[in-house]
Amino acid sequence: MAGNTFGRLFRMTTFGESHGIGIGVVLDGVPPYLPLSEADIQFDLDRRRPGTSHIVTPRKESDTVEIISGVFEGQTTGTPLALFIRNTNQKSKDYSNIKDVFRPGHADFTYSEKYGIRDYRGGGRSSGRETAARVAAGAVAKKLLESHNIHILAHTKSVSNITATTFNESEIEKNPVRCADPAKAKEMISAIEAAKKEGDSLGGVIEAVIRGCPVGLGDPVFDKLDALLAAAIMSIGTIKGIEFGEGFAITKMKGSESNDEFFNDGGIIKTRTNHSGGILGGISSGEDIILRAAIKPPSSISKFQKTVSKSKKPTEIQVTGRHDPCICPRVVPVIEAMIAVTLADCLLVQKSVVVTGESEEKTP
Amino acid sequence: MAGNTFGRLFRMTTFGESHGIGIGVVLDGVPPYLPLSEADIQFDLDRRRPGTSHIVTPRKESDTVEIISGVFEGQTTGTPLALFIRNTNQKSKDYSNIKDVFRPGHADFTYSEKYGIRDYRGGGRSSGRETAARVAAGAVAKKLLESHNIHILAHTKSVSNITATTFNESEIEKNPVRCADPAKAKEMISAIEAAKKEGDSLGGVIEAVIRGCPVGLGDPVFDKLDALLAAAIMSIGTIKGIEFGEGFAITKMKGSESNDEFFNDGGIIKTRTNHSGGILGGISSGEDIILRAAIKPPSSISKFQKTVSKSKKPTEIQVTGRHDPCICPRVVPVIEAMIAVTLADCLLVQKSVVVTGESEEKTP
Amino acid sequence: MAGNTFGRLFRMTTFGESHGIGIGVVLDGVPPYLPLSEADIQFDLDRRRPGTSHIVTPRKESDTVEIISGVFEGQTTGTPLALFIRNTNQKSKDYSNIKDVFRPGHADFTYSEKYGIRDYRGGGRSSGRETAARVAAGAVAKKLLESHNIHILAHTKSVSNITATTFNESEIEKNPVRCADPAKAKEMISAIEAAKKEGDSLGGVIEAVIRGCPVGLGDPVFDKLDALLAAAIMSIGTIKGIEFGEGFAITKMKGSESNDEFFNDGGIIKTRTNHSGGILGGISSGEDIILRAAIKPPSSISKFQKTVSKSKKPTEIQVTGRHDPCICPRVVPVIEAMIAVTLADCLLVQKSVVVTGESEEKTP
Amino acid sequence: MAGNTFGRLFRMTTFGESHGIGIGVVLDGVPPYLPLSEADIQFDLDRRRPGTSHIVTPRKESDTVEIISGVFEGQTTGTPLALFIRNTNQKSKDYSNIKDVFRPGHADFTYSEKYGIRDYRGGGRSSGRETAARVAAGAVAKKLLESHNIHILAHTKSVSNITATTFNESEIEKNPVRCADPAKAKEMISAIEAAKKEGDSLGGVIEAVIRGCPVGLGDPVFDKLDALLAAAIMSIGTIKGIEFGEGFAITKMKGSESNDEFFNDGGIIKTRTNHSGGILGGISSGEDIILRAAIKPPSSISKFQKTVSKSKKPTEIQVTGRHDPCICPRVVPVIEAMIAVTLADCLLVQKSVVVTGESEEKTP
Repeated sequence: MAGNTFGRLFRMTTFGESHGIGIGVVLDGVPPYLPLSEADIQFDLDRRRPGTSHIVTPRKESDTVEIISGVFEGQTTGTPLALFIRNTNQKSKDYSNIKDVFRPGHADFTYSEKYGIRDYRGGGRSSGRETAARVAAGAVAKKLLESHNIHILAHTKSVSNITATTFNESEIEKNPVRCADPAKAKEMISAIEAAKKEGDSLGGVIEAVIRGCPVGLGDPVFDKLDALLAAAIMSIGTIKGIEFGEGFAITKMKGSESNDEFFNDGGIIKTRTNHSGGILGGISSGEDIILRAAIKPPSSISKFQKTVSKSKKPTEIQVTGRHDPCICPRVVPVIEAMIAVTLADCLLVQKSVVVTGESEEKTP
Repeated sequence: MAGNTFGRLFRMTTFGESHGIGIGVVLDGVPPYLPLSEADIQFDLDRRRPGTSHIVTPRKESDTVEIISGVFEGQTTGTPLALFIRNTNQKSKDYSNIKDVFRPGHADFTYSEKYGIRDYRGGGRSSGRETAARVAAGAVAKKLLESHNIHILAHTKSVSNITATTFNESEIEKNPVRCADPAKAKEMISAIEAAKKEGDSLGGVIEAVIRGCPVGLGDPVFDKLDALLAAAIMSIGTIKGIEFGEGFAITKMKGSESNDEFFNDGGIIKTRTNHSGGILGGISSGEDIILRAAIKPPSSISKFQKTVSKSKKPTEIQVTGRHDPCICPRVVPVIEAMIAVTLADCLLVQKSVVVTGESEEKTP
Repeated sequence: MAGNTFGRLFRMTTFGESHGIGIGVVLDGVPPYLPLSEADIQFDLDRRRPGTSHIVTPRKESDTVEIISGVFEGQTTGTPLALFIRNTNQKSKDYSNIKDVFRPGHADFTYSEKYGIRDYRGGGRSSGRETAARVAAGAVAKKLLESHNIHILAHTKSVSNITATTFNESEIEKNPVRCADPAKAKEMISAIEAAKKEGDSLGGVIEAVIRGCPVGLGDPVFDKLDALLAAAIMSIGTIKGIEFGEGFAITKMKGSESNDEFFNDGGIIKTRTNHSGGILGGISSGEDIILRAAIKPPSSISKFQKTVSKSKKPTEIQVTGRHDPCICPRVVPVIEAMIAVTLADCLLVQKSVVVTGESEEKTP
Repeated sequence: MAGNTFGRLFRMTTFGESHGIGIGVVLDGVPPYLPLSEADIQFDLDRRRPGTSHIVTPRKESDTVEIISGVFEGQTTGTPLALFIRNTNQKSKDYSNIKDVFRPGHADFTYSEKYGIRDYRGGGRSSGRETAARVAAGAVAKKLLESHNIHILAHTKSVSNITATTFNESEIEKNPVRCADPAKAKEMISAIEAAKKEGDSLGGVIEAVIRGCPVGLGDPVFDKLDALLAAAIMSIGTIKGIEFGEGFAITKMKGSESNDEFFNDGGIIKTRTNHSGGILGGISSGEDIILRAAIKPPSSISKFQKTVSKSKKPTEIQVTGRHDPCICPRVVPVIEAMIAVTLADCLLVQKSVVVTGESEEKTP
């Protein structure tokens, strides 16, 4: 297995299990001089951590990050940044009910088959807890991007069949479901409460907007910006689909409708519409980049489900514990983080594109 | 730019422009002993090439592949395979109308901004012609996969708002739109003909099914099988979204509905449903892998569109030439190819996972 | 900077500074089922750590390793292994003499120029302390290799102009200079003591032998086994040259002398001589792999040296502190570690080479 | 096998066999605007090609390069550059003598064991002919480097036991052995002629000097400039050792002798000596980079040698054909090429290091 590193020049390598000593990340390629403190990283970790509202898991994890290397006198030095989040909530609880039984919707079965061995305590490496490392890395990437005026914003667009119809950015962090439509947020919360009461769970759609991205990020043909972002976001365990701009709806449009016409907006070339979602030919166009991800209902539910044991015997399982009835609000910062790391990487790669200096005249 | 290589152990590197000398691919990591001839590759190239029906571009390209290296006495040798497809249809036509004007929906603007220079003849490197190299590479990957009993099948699921409702696999290659529902295929063809007459274009959805994939392919956490497939497919220029299993529809299900229960099917662990689309925790589960991609309407339309020139002056453009009114049937083999290359890579990587031999007992 | 990861399938990523919190490594791609405890790793760390004899630095570091992730119930699980060695000897000493002055032979100047900022405490990331992480990773690689009967042995071949003339393997770990010739070891030790007294330092040559390596490791044309080993070993800060088999001496031989003739040794194809050092065309031949590395005299000496300050003013520097008068004995386990990690990687890559099964008849 | 790609941002992927259709290379990451024609590349190819003097093989190959993609109107476009050199001298000669017999010193045995199959015509992929692709790629890299005032020069330092004692740069290309000492060149030529007459071959040492390299190239800790250069050069088939600066001789110096003292040379920090060979801590120091490589005597000799057949039977072999009695003069441009590609890559990577702009003050 060699899949725990992401990125080309801005590279993150993560490690750790849900019930081991902790979760960590090594970030290689962080440019020097970036002012960085643990507080910068803690902010997003706090948005992701459990126990912050009644519609997420009541599990308590402080998720306190420690910078282990790469920062000297408050600034990055260009050497690898190592971040570590110690696990504090690993109870020596009884795992006998899941040790030899495959939980439906989880990776228990596939890990067992792939590796022949698995850390069954709370999912081990396959646990969503692994995303804490991504969020920590993303916070560093965001600092780099913000110094280039690139900003990332994600929010819960829908939960089950309830979809936000207004967009008020300042509302997002005010409600526990992270929805930009406060009225729909209330409905979403009620639906989540109801599912929780039933021992069931709900999915939803998260939308992200990237503002200020310069033209030119993304590298044809396989490292297209949308391809890299798709890989980044699909690598989050809970996601079953991703779309850019109009996404699947564009399949019902005509070319004359879906093409975005260019115009001169005070000396800057812009498009009148943004059906493409800010990416043309795999390269950022300077428009807002817009994407949406499909979040599945959490697999851990307390309803009884049929399954089999390792010895292939039929059995039933009730996944007890403190689970998220809807993971959307906690995935919002994870998606932001994966976008941030991807864009930081593309930004560094793009620095290497025009270096000959023979003629640097771009579109005048 | 360093984005023209795809894969980890089974790696393809492509090159070439639509109106240059030709299109090619170097495939590194192809195992030895694979019987391979140009005919094996030509089959899929013929499915992709233009001019094969009245609903695709009437442009003529023979797309004849030549094996330049890596095959000796009819078998691969483990050395890099180089495949080349000479361009034969590059007319010295007049490009003055697109040389200094940005075609809406195309990569003209973003390439100009990224590189400051672009080969404007028919899109150059950003042309869909680049996918011929992918199809050639995919044909080699398919041979490797077929020797492992893994089979890939893609088909047009919808065009505009017409969706196939039946699935008859044997019908797919019998109609020019590559739809498994012959009645809907007729409707799709009529819709495409109508769009063509208007000088417009249509999009659609392509679905792919992978059968026979063993349990265990894909590598947590960033090289999840769905993440790699998403990157592979999103890197095809025309695609705006991808989903696995239930995809976006899963966001409206409850966990108790979307979880796939395991059962013992004659000694093999299977799931009764397949909402996950054959991937659990980023690792293939042994069920059919199912995905769908959103294809946008082709950007090249003969209707007049507003745009700007390189000097930012407003202008109009009519993209003349022989374009595809709907690219779905020609994208079908491209999606198959990208899936094949991705799976071949995962298959080779998986060979390295269990090597210690200390205890190879898997789930019994 | 993106240079802190080494390997393709068996990948190590290191982090940490000499006077920060600690030094660590993430090892991705370690196969599952490998029995592993901290004691397995500590053994080689103890061979590398300072303070073990009077001819190395008397600095005290316990170099105690902690396994942070990747091991469950005493076995690796296929998930990333994280190892951490806490620094315990960082005194809040006065660095004012080196903060703004470039020590000759050190990386102070080049780090300052490359990054514009540097952690001047004891060299920071450029310190040899970084190699502790390599040794930890190497210990894991060695366990994997030993389960395949591959064994690595390094020893001090020469110090200054004193060269071992006999080879008695069992003597190596019995003398503090790690020399296989006990008589010459005594001379080496005397020479080192004399240099130490003068405030000076000595270099030497380390030789390594790899036994039991199967035929077939290494990948033409750029990932030749000798190319990968050269990169691995040259990446150790103190090394100025590497050679394989006869090395530079081969340039004075004739082809009829340097070619190794093949013969049938009881059914196994062997060579009568081993001038090539066990590698032919970049691929292991089954013979012992033999290489030698040139170790420079440590740059930290207490003699006064001329240099300049950051503000380019001429000055003198005396590098005080507890330095190694000859680093050879402590580099021996570092070279072994880099060889081990490289071979483990090649071993995993080789698993992917023959997978088609069409015809697996090798040389009969 | 996945070893046919070299580099991180400036990446070359080569393909082709000695007796196949041709040899080629795809160069990804070449910055746009580089003026490039086939003549630019042909110059170095002509230095490498056979048949140019009586002390190299009299084989005739025109080695004419064709640019297949990546250049538009005389300039690179940022898209992948593909270069192809058609083989013209593949005679349908009789290979029966080497088909089933392992030539001593060659890769026949190791390829057979690794892949189970090999293209036995003239060595196939393992032939030195493969380096033509490297030279072509190197010529492109040199153009990029020269636009940054970085120049690479290699020359034959010794042949057998004859070593150049003077250095007159302008003499190098004037004698067929590419030696900077015209008197010693004559001796070298005589020695090569004598070896040729005996059906034997000679080795030698090639030295390279890189001038104008800015401070800061190379990336700690594994991508040190000397580590990358070592891998690059050791990947050339014929090389058995590499050393930087004083190299192996430094092992006999004291630290007080080998350290290079810094001084202020008219506002620029320089070193009075250059024992380190222009690299400190793996990063270029601004001094000339100096390295030497050990070239083995060519393995193809017409003297009878003992060996075994594929069926392990003892036999004798006389490698007939037109071989190089000393490969040094033809390796000179190959070493230059590998250095050029490595430095071009480091140059692009370095562009990404300082991007935050928070404080770009370097050592004042």
